[in-house]
Amino acid sequence: MHLDTPYYAVIFTSTRTAGDKGYAAMAQEMEELAKRQPGYLGFESARENIGITISYWKNLQAISDWKQQTEHLLAQRKGISDWYSWYKVRVCLVEREYDFTR
Amino acid sequence: MHLDTPYYAVIFTSTRTAGDKGYAAMAQEMEELAKRQPGYLGFESARENIGITISYWKNLQAISDWKQQTEHLLAQRKGISDWYSWYKVRVCLVEREYDFTR
Repeated sequence: MHLDTPYYAVIFTSTRTAGDKGYAAMAQEMEELAKRQPGYLGFESARENIGITISYWKNLQAISDWKQQTEHLLAQRKGISDWYSWYKVRVCLVEREYDFTR
Repeated sequence: MHLDTPYYAVIFTSTRTAGDKGYAAMAQEMEELAKRQPGYLGFESARENIGITISYWKNLQAISDWKQQTEHLLAQRKGISDWYSWYKVRVCLVEREYDFTR
């Protein structure tokens, strides 16, 4: 995906608690929901020792609206009660980008 | 790690070619080298379907210096010739952050 800068990235880094406890299904659902939010631009995710999920957004308003989305609020609450031992959220302005394709 | 905002993040997302071809050793070496660069603040990495590596820096000058570091230039060249089928680099200003610890 190519995007015109500037736009926003939300970097979500986390460590999970033991066991799935409904996490995988909810993560999938949240990804689908985020895609339908106004101002959503994209999504990238990988988990190894830590999980890194980055969502891309048109502006701060879009990030704020997604943070307050009803089902997402429920997921955030479950994140704190059940799924994560630690997480960190960073809100970032993407100033420039470049890429390489073989 | 807690950092005072604003600072910079470089998001490096990539897909690998097949086979190691010296990649793991070089990735380890680059992580060690980056830690010794002026303005280096931290590093997070995970690979699943795609790889996401984020390095954190004090300012744009620190990012530019790291990009031009001699051994890192060699690694970048090997990245294009051997290791990556695709990558994307995003330079981002981290405007705010918050975290949760159980």
